[in-house]
Amino acid sequence: MQYLKHTIENIETILLDPKGHIRAKFDTLAIPRGSLGRLEELATTYYSIKGSLSCGLKHKKIFTLAGDHGVVAEGVSAFPQQVTCEMVQNFIRGGAAINVLARHIGAKVIVVDCGVASKIPPSAGLKIKKLNHGTNNMASGPAMSREDAVKSIETGIELIEEELREGLDIVGLGDMGIANTTPSSAIFSILGNVDISIATGRGTGLNDSELQKKIAVIKKAIAINRPDPNDPIDVLAKVGGYEIGGITGLCLGAARHRIPIVLDGFISTAGAIIACALEPKVVNYFIASHVSAEQGHKYMLEFLGKEPLLNLNMRLGEGTGATLGIHLVEAGVKLLNEMATFQDAKVSDPYS
Amino acid sequence: MQYLKHTIENIETILLDPKGHIRAKFDTLAIPRGSLGRLEELATTYYSIKGSLSCGLKHKKIFTLAGDHGVVAEGVSAFPQQVTCEMVQNFIRGGAAINVLARHIGAKVIVVDCGVASKIPPSAGLKIKKLNHGTNNMASGPAMSREDAVKSIETGIELIEEELREGLDIVGLGDMGIANTTPSSAIFSILGNVDISIATGRGTGLNDSELQKKIAVIKKAIAINRPDPNDPIDVLAKVGGYEIGGITGLCLGAARHRIPIVLDGFISTAGAIIACALEPKVVNYFIASHVSAEQGHKYMLEFLGKEPLLNLNMRLGEGTGATLGIHLVEAGVKLLNEMATFQDAKVSDPYS
Repeated sequence: MQYLKHTIENIETILLDPKGHIRAKFDTLAIPRGSLGRLEELATTYYSIKGSLSCGLKHKKIFTLAGDHGVVAEGVSAFPQQVTCEMVQNFIRGGAAINVLARHIGAKVIVVDCGVASKIPPSAGLKIKKLNHGTNNMASGPAMSREDAVKSIETGIELIEEELREGLDIVGLGDMGIANTTPSSAIFSILGNVDISIATGRGTGLNDSELQKKIAVIKKAIAINRPDPNDPIDVLAKVGGYEIGGITGLCLGAARHRIPIVLDGFISTAGAIIACALEPKVVNYFIASHVSAEQGHKYMLEFLGKEPLLNLNMRLGEGTGATLGIHLVEAGVKLLNEMATFQDAKVSDPYS
Repeated sequence: MQYLKHTIENIETILLDPKGHIRAKFDTLAIPRGSLGRLEELATTYYSIKGSLSCGLKHKKIFTLAGDHGVVAEGVSAFPQQVTCEMVQNFIRGGAAINVLARHIGAKVIVVDCGVASKIPPSAGLKIKKLNHGTNNMASGPAMSREDAVKSIETGIELIEEELREGLDIVGLGDMGIANTTPSSAIFSILGNVDISIATGRGTGLNDSELQKKIAVIKKAIAINRPDPNDPIDVLAKVGGYEIGGITGLCLGAARHRIPIVLDGFISTAGAIIACALEPKVVNYFIASHVSAEQGHKYMLEFLGKEPLLNLNMRLGEGTGATLGIHLVEAGVKLLNEMATFQDAKVSDPYS
């Protein structure tokens, strides 16, 4: 708890380009002013967080955090629980969507077992930070202890600080966990004060009656556990998950070190919302990559006041949307740094 | 004319995944079905055009075609005409936005002088296909002769066939030409049967009264020239431009060789609309990268029945939006080709 408290206390407020240096640099470039639109906004956000125009964007890392969920026993997912473990092994071998997209943008994937139900053999491509073999079934009691909820967040902070040593310029959030839209919907419903039926979607592909069942399970979990909306750690403990707490920690840890955070889809944004509930300053470290096809994600982004860069009807998680968002941030950063000015390019400057 | 006619006659009809082979391949991959959203659609479009699943996506080329416009004399642009030539030299030196973004996605930029007003010194990085030193002022007569309009289109076809020899898997359209939103608005107004005030925007940054003047100039040009809406070459000759005709040729040439075409912004889409008017089959070879902030572009995309991948409030041209679109197409193609199947990854398949 001391580690978490210390991290939160050291998060600084971010103002966008407070001295106008970034705008001034853009205004020297040989383009009509403002014509790069949101790519300019992304470079501005990136450098406002970094606090200095002298750094580039080299080390891009996607953190794909995995955990299992006891609530899977209620039949809330179209996939069986063992798929979490199987997919983690797929990540390690480089065969999943997140691996393909990370290679495509030149990013590294950090695969972490935060609480997968089965034992995954140690491997060079896997960080084992297992707190438990899956959460308890939140429909019959708390998903985890308050102590483990804190530990799960601290795990995420620790991951950031480990990777910082080897270089970390931007963080992409990612998740894997069969049934993890269920706790994410519960979290958003409570912390966002949103009706459960608005916050709950079809996940990997439920039909109408399965969706109704999922909504009923979430209602039951909230009724039994009575999570306190003013206590984000209580919410995480009662209706959260180990990978979701880890994502909360990634957000707090990255913000504490002034590293931009690129959101992915529904689950990663649930973790991000817990981080904002713990420390509202964190919201200015977020960049929304895409809006997921999972119902509720667009409301999450509205709740955070974020406009997504992409709407590609994706709903996979793993950090897949985050990779595409990072590529756009990098485009903005490169444009600011590599384009010729009106003066260098000897282009007539109508603004001078 | 024979070259153009031959090209058009050899354009094949594209059906999306007519035998279901692409869908079948996606269905083997270890993801919830359909969860990659529009990335799946992009891979499907790409391979439907290519006609074979055995090719990859290696040679990405952005064609940035430059031309000047006599109508600049009417005061329709915030920038002076010499900027076209200056920017072409900036492209050759690699300092423009299109160079930065093309490097970012690993694409090559083909810079072409289709009709810049001033003489640009020959250079290894420039293709000179100059038909004239800028068009005539369309507000006082035809922009070019019918013969030159045909030649400008044939130049675009020729560019595709030249690049094909060195490898060409996907084409990004791009443009440079001070005042070229003015002919583009005129073209769309006529071929799209859209009111001039709807088709006309602020270009590089006109104020309200300058915009009204631009609309009046376009009205005058159409009244004087009376382009025939049923004769796309007549429209190009009377109110078009050399780079716009070149872009029309790129579309026809690429379609004739079954190469996917990624649209950029307002000007490139005007060229694309002429290509569709000449041969409607071409529309299925188009992928819309982004919707520009230039008023009218969203109506152009609606007219073509295309949903843009990105809305980043960009309005620069050069092919900048096309690069970002190509990166997404490549993401879809790589996912289809590089992801592990349920079987290979030993992931439990709930669909089997």
